[in-house]
Amino acid sequence: MTPIKDFASLTAHLRESGVRKRIAVVCASDRNTEQAVVHALEEGFADLIMVGDGDILDRFSELKRFPGRVEVIDVHDRDEAARVAVKLVRDGKADVLMKGLINTDNILRAILDKECGILPAGRVLTHVTVAEVPGRDKLLFFSDPAVIPSPTFSQRVEQVRYLASICRSFGIECPRIALVHCSEKVNAKMPVTLDYVRLVEMNRQGDFGKAIIDGPMDVKTACEATSGAIKGIVSPIEGNADALLFPDIESGNVFYKTLTLWAKALNAGMLCGTSAPVVLPSRSDTAEAKYTSLAVACLM
Amino acid sequence: MTPIKDFASLTAHLRESGVRKRIAVVCASDRNTEQAVVHALEEGFADLIMVGDGDILDRFSELKRFPGRVEVIDVHDRDEAARVAVKLVRDGKADVLMKGLINTDNILRAILDKECGILPAGRVLTHVTVAEVPGRDKLLFFSDPAVIPSPTFSQRVEQVRYLASICRSFGIECPRIALVHCSEKVNAKMPVTLDYVRLVEMNRQGDFGKAIIDGPMDVKTACEATSGAIKGIVSPIEGNADALLFPDIESGNVFYKTLTLWAKALNAGMLCGTSAPVVLPSRSDTAEAKYTSLAVACLM
Repeated sequence: MTPIKDFASLTAHLRESGVRKRIAVVCASDRNTEQAVVHALEEGFADLIMVGDGDILDRFSELKRFPGRVEVIDVHDRDEAARVAVKLVRDGKADVLMKGLINTDNILRAILDKECGILPAGRVLTHVTVAEVPGRDKLLFFSDPAVIPSPTFSQRVEQVRYLASICRSFGIECPRIALVHCSEKVNAKMPVTLDYVRLVEMNRQGDFGKAIIDGPMDVKTACEATSGAIKGIVSPIEGNADALLFPDIESGNVFYKTLTLWAKALNAGMLCGTSAPVVLPSRSDTAEAKYTSLAVACLM
Repeated sequence: MTPIKDFASLTAHLRESGVRKRIAVVCASDRNTEQAVVHALEEGFADLIMVGDGDILDRFSELKRFPGRVEVIDVHDRDEAARVAVKLVRDGKADVLMKGLINTDNILRAILDKECGILPAGRVLTHVTVAEVPGRDKLLFFSDPAVIPSPTFSQRVEQVRYLASICRSFGIECPRIALVHCSEKVNAKMPVTLDYVRLVEMNRQGDFGKAIIDGPMDVKTACEATSGAIKGIVSPIEGNADALLFPDIESGNVFYKTLTLWAKALNAGMLCGTSAPVVLPSRSDTAEAKYTSLAVACLM
């Protein structure tokens, strides 16, 4: 498979490979979510089950252009809407879950419910973002801007596994994964750097399959060839990372928001660990970002 | 004073107000630092004391254009160079300390030395960056991308004080300071959000002078008016922050690096808490960034 290097190629790939997924959308009461799902209908890789206010076809009349491809389930309470949509996924009636205008916490509660949720026992729930950043010649994958506040070592291991796996879904055979920290120094006072040493060693022993993993290093050293050279840092990442592992939710979230706000990046987000992909954009994301998140989830 | 809204106005302000500072530069062995100090010499607001390899005038011949304004102190060992430069500041022979191609940790050791350093007892050492971000109509101040890994509450108080004070040096009478977190929710499981509640309350009681302080909120809500509106967040910051307080060094550092790498921002950095301003750019910063950091320090 040729690596998918931008989001236009992702849509083309979905079209050419005849992908068609059923999406359960929770509380699509904002115009950005509407435009996103209409775009997915147009491209042909998604059918919709809209869970939320029952008058959605009246309010979002564009949806009427796709008869037979949009089902509506009328649920007024937001928490209940989340539970109903999660059950659709759990029962095999939907392939992907998508969040509209509802707080992340509220939809997470339904996903994580031990009896009725969609997180298999023992799986780590985390978030991966795929970013198309103007000026870069390929996509950038990173984790975790949204779910795990301060990952344990075993959670970091799973985050690296998910990053590697998603990179491979995009056709990157040997992903370069940089372990982000404010400095390149290993320092016992900063425990994350010790975790990183262990991750690099695990990769040396082949635990992550074919992958180049190195760190600690800062974002510039990971993504700009000249930065490491000036600092005298020699790394197999060579300033050419495919993926970034962030040390905590604060740094991941700042990266996500800064990319969209000032780097004019397009970010697509997805939950990992659940039994089916979950699209979890920020409520303030653009329609294009929400559409692209959906496309990423449909590739999985 | 008219607020200084970009770095060109900063240079103009320094020129017009006749500022002239003596800068002690540690290990200026890279071309970016050379170009930065030459630019400051040209603008006229700085004289130099170069502490490091004694042959610097031969290697950086541009410096010879300013006879009588560049002194050289020959010190080969980097740690010793840091100590000598710090002593110049301590003895009142230099007004500003500037870092060249030396690790932050090494220069910090000399600054923090209890006997011979320049951090008065009881002062909090932290870092403030001033960023000129294309697309914004004013400068953006933030803390701390470089020094305090995980600030205590009392350190956060001082960080806010420094941010407010530096904003006022730039002519912003009532700075808008946003307290950054991945979510707008106060949550006891995320102790930083409780610190933020206390900071907002302190400001309500007037502890930070004339200032608008609010949070927790994410970077987009702090800096983009439409973001908060979509999320239904009402804040006196109104998506128009002058300054951002970051929860930890990881998030601050990621913000700094991401701004320079992909938002084409120009970042100027400075240590706060020391008895004189300390310019502490990243070794991989451009000459323009290093020059601008120096200009910011000379405004203080």
